[in-house]
Amino acid sequence: MSTITSVPDVLDRARAAVEPTMIDAVERLNPELRTVAAYHHGWCDEHGAPTPRGGGKGVRPALALLSAEAAGADASVGVPGGVAVELVHSFSLLHDDVIDGDLERRHRPTVWALYGVGPAVIVGDALLALAQQTLLRAAPANDAAAGAAARTEATAELTDAVAAMIAGQAEDMAFESRTDVTVEQCLAMVAGKTGALLSCAATIGALLAGAPDAVVEVLRSYGTNLGVAFQAVDDLLGIWGDPERTGKPRGNDLATRKKSLPVVYALGARRSAARELRDLLTNGPLDAGAVARGTELVDALGGRRATETLARSHLDAACRALDHAGLAPAARAELTDLARFVVEREF
Amino acid sequence: MSTITSVPDVLDRARAAVEPTMIDAVERLNPELRTVAAYHHGWCDEHGAPTPRGGGKGVRPALALLSAEAAGADASVGVPGGVAVELVHSFSLLHDDVIDGDLERRHRPTVWALYGVGPAVIVGDALLALAQQTLLRAAPANDAAAGAAARTEATAELTDAVAAMIAGQAEDMAFESRTDVTVEQCLAMVAGKTGALLSCAATIGALLAGAPDAVVEVLRSYGTNLGVAFQAVDDLLGIWGDPERTGKPRGNDLATRKKSLPVVYALGARRSAARELRDLLTNGPLDAGAVARGTELVDALGGRRATETLARSHLDAACRALDHAGLAPAARAELTDLARFVVEREF
Repeated sequence: MSTITSVPDVLDRARAAVEPTMIDAVERLNPELRTVAAYHHGWCDEHGAPTPRGGGKGVRPALALLSAEAAGADASVGVPGGVAVELVHSFSLLHDDVIDGDLERRHRPTVWALYGVGPAVIVGDALLALAQQTLLRAAPANDAAAGAAARTEATAELTDAVAAMIAGQAEDMAFESRTDVTVEQCLAMVAGKTGALLSCAATIGALLAGAPDAVVEVLRSYGTNLGVAFQAVDDLLGIWGDPERTGKPRGNDLATRKKSLPVVYALGARRSAARELRDLLTNGPLDAGAVARGTELVDALGGRRATETLARSHLDAACRALDHAGLAPAARAELTDLARFVVEREF
Repeated sequence: MSTITSVPDVLDRARAAVEPTMIDAVERLNPELRTVAAYHHGWCDEHGAPTPRGGGKGVRPALALLSAEAAGADASVGVPGGVAVELVHSFSLLHDDVIDGDLERRHRPTVWALYGVGPAVIVGDALLALAQQTLLRAAPANDAAAGAAARTEATAELTDAVAAMIAGQAEDMAFESRTDVTVEQCLAMVAGKTGALLSCAATIGALLAGAPDAVVEVLRSYGTNLGVAFQAVDDLLGIWGDPERTGKPRGNDLATRKKSLPVVYALGARRSAARELRDLLTNGPLDAGAVARGTELVDALGGRRATETLARSHLDAACRALDHAGLAPAARAELTDLARFVVEREF
């Protein structure tokens, strides 16, 4: 898994299609909320000066557009879905940074670190409401009745994803003070924390297009598998990634005793070093020395290798899932490329 | 305005109809979230031991049920709406307490004070998602197509109310550092912070019942006017209320320099004492002596009386609004009683 796939065109296409609508949506917020939201999205610095090409890669909007295309519709049908999932993603990052006490994201101070907890909480709330307004107030794709039903389905899917994501985040928090988390429990948490919104992104365009259930199910399976692969890579980067590229300090996950996948695999190894790791993680937070030793132990206990294998197998499963229905071939190829890009990004 | 109206039966009826569904919904949350949510709703103490008859009065669920009945439907049609607005109300209290740094609510420590900021943020998020799931996953009231359209309308109304409420809360925060807030600006803020959700509660049952626009508009006007009256009373209680009855420390609003209605009226008076009040409110937070002096000044400058007049006139407007359509008479009478009860609660 050493190839770095070139950045898929669909990311640029999706950004061009979705960002204007996102900016319009954020512009409708109060002035106080708007500035903080624009900073969080990387559209401006802390003084309000515009910053070019900030923000994330936009994987979720790209999935939403491809999801519409895979169902045979125009990419534009997926735009409200793309905006909605990206706003939900922004909401979750804002609140997660408060909850985790993280000071930096994408090489910049997090919103709560810069503006305070209150603004971070309320701007997150505003982005979540905006996400749902975007979907519910979207112009119907075809006739009014089908449009309403499709929007209701898409909104219900998004709302379920938000609920699952929050449940996963709560489990992730609860796992910090435990050392007996099983791989199965960890995967269930990941399915919520990361899988639910990716799966929603991969289906929402098809839902807005009024696609048949079989198509939606295929895309859901793709998104769910991609979610596990995505989180596995994130967890690897959280321990061994280059902070210059990840934008986050290395070792944070271990320091806060997060039960990320490599750690859970390592703790489950039937070797004496697993006990040393368990002891290390019993009282937190960990200092730099303990983080360094923990990193060695997780690797030596096979946690790194097992997580890499997991990422690879779920990437394969995601791509294979797309075999099972008559998806539009071009969109299907782009979904495969996008999955490979996301999972192979830093290997 | 010295009569205390007896507690309307509809509050008990609504609680009996809505609380089981609310408890079921909260039971579906993760164990970590569930306990905190149950504490916040007053269903248990901080050790998880059940507490009888905790929580708020349940004005919003009562409005939702009466809204369905006013449109000629059974109260049960309004139940998902009643659950949803009450869950949104709970979400907003949780996050507001974090944002405002309030330590006590209903004579008990607030969630963030007891469990920490992270749990308060995430449980609030979970309740908001649950509110929308409740509406979107509610069994259709009549045939499937009309049911979907009604649920979409109700969800859109709720989402718009959440967005308006957040915008109002953001303005309320921004007003703290200003002394030039006009009555008009303050009323616009109140329309969002308080009016939007009350107006949503007063229409959501009718929307779920598929009521004609004219009926929905009448109920919206009732709810909007009730919102202003409600907030005016809240603001009066925030300065002159008995902490034993309000469950909140007196003087908090002045100490944090909130631009509540009495303060805004007082600041707008063309008298020299208004300048003293302005100076007092220019640098905060206020100590106990400054709060006492501020309280005197707001009263002397007519802020108390103007706010009482405002509450009374908007209560009248709310009740008069109900004259304008063929609402079911029994529900209409109960809506009038409920409005009087809410506004006259502590006078």
